[in-house]
Amino acid sequence: MAELDRVIHEPVRLRIMACLDALNPKEQVDFVYLRDLLAVTDGNLGAHLQKLEEAGYISVKKRFVGRKPKTFISATTKGRAAFGEHVEALRGIIEGGEAGGVS
Amino acid sequence: MAELDRVIHEPVRLRIMACLDALNPKEQVDFVYLRDLLAVTDGNLGAHLQKLEEAGYISVKKRFVGRKPKTFISATTKGRAAFGEHVEALRGIIEGGEAGGVS
Repeated sequence: MAELDRVIHEPVRLRIMACLDALNPKEQVDFVYLRDLLAVTDGNLGAHLQKLEEAGYISVKKRFVGRKPKTFISATTKGRAAFGEHVEALRGIIEGGEAGGVS
Repeated sequence: MAELDRVIHEPVRLRIMACLDALNPKEQVDFVYLRDLLAVTDGNLGAHLQKLEEAGYISVKKRFVGRKPKTFISATTKGRAAFGEHVEALRGIIEGGEAGGVS
């Protein structure tokens, strides 16, 4: 029975993972782009990214673009797999009325 | 843009609403049935039901069946509509990489 992953389920994190999962494996997004896309504050996005990074679901890299430090985010293989399973669990609930557990 | 409803999004409440939404309009479920289906404790289920009831999404009625008091739960019209919108918002995120807001 597919289970919901509470790390991914939180609304902002669900949107972050959906966005990252839609990219090609080597692609990454810029912090500012993600912040504006999700309409959240720097602090809010930072906290959610930290939680996803701690779970090993995303990779966060800082590097200079010209003289400016920028933060780039991408989904890890583990993160893509976890997101895939989470989506499967969600589908089971919203389509099947299936009532599995919560991890 | 469809928004996620935090009252419904919480995993246990999402499962409750999915279960109730799958019933016919006049049907209701018994508290014990729901508790066992979701594998949660009485206290946990009670707290989530209260939250959904406060939002006007479910109706909770106690009545005697023989000598035993039983609690019956059903989705309200408002609850069904809110669940439908929530599912639509979820689909937008997991299928489209759409990045809407959070209410």
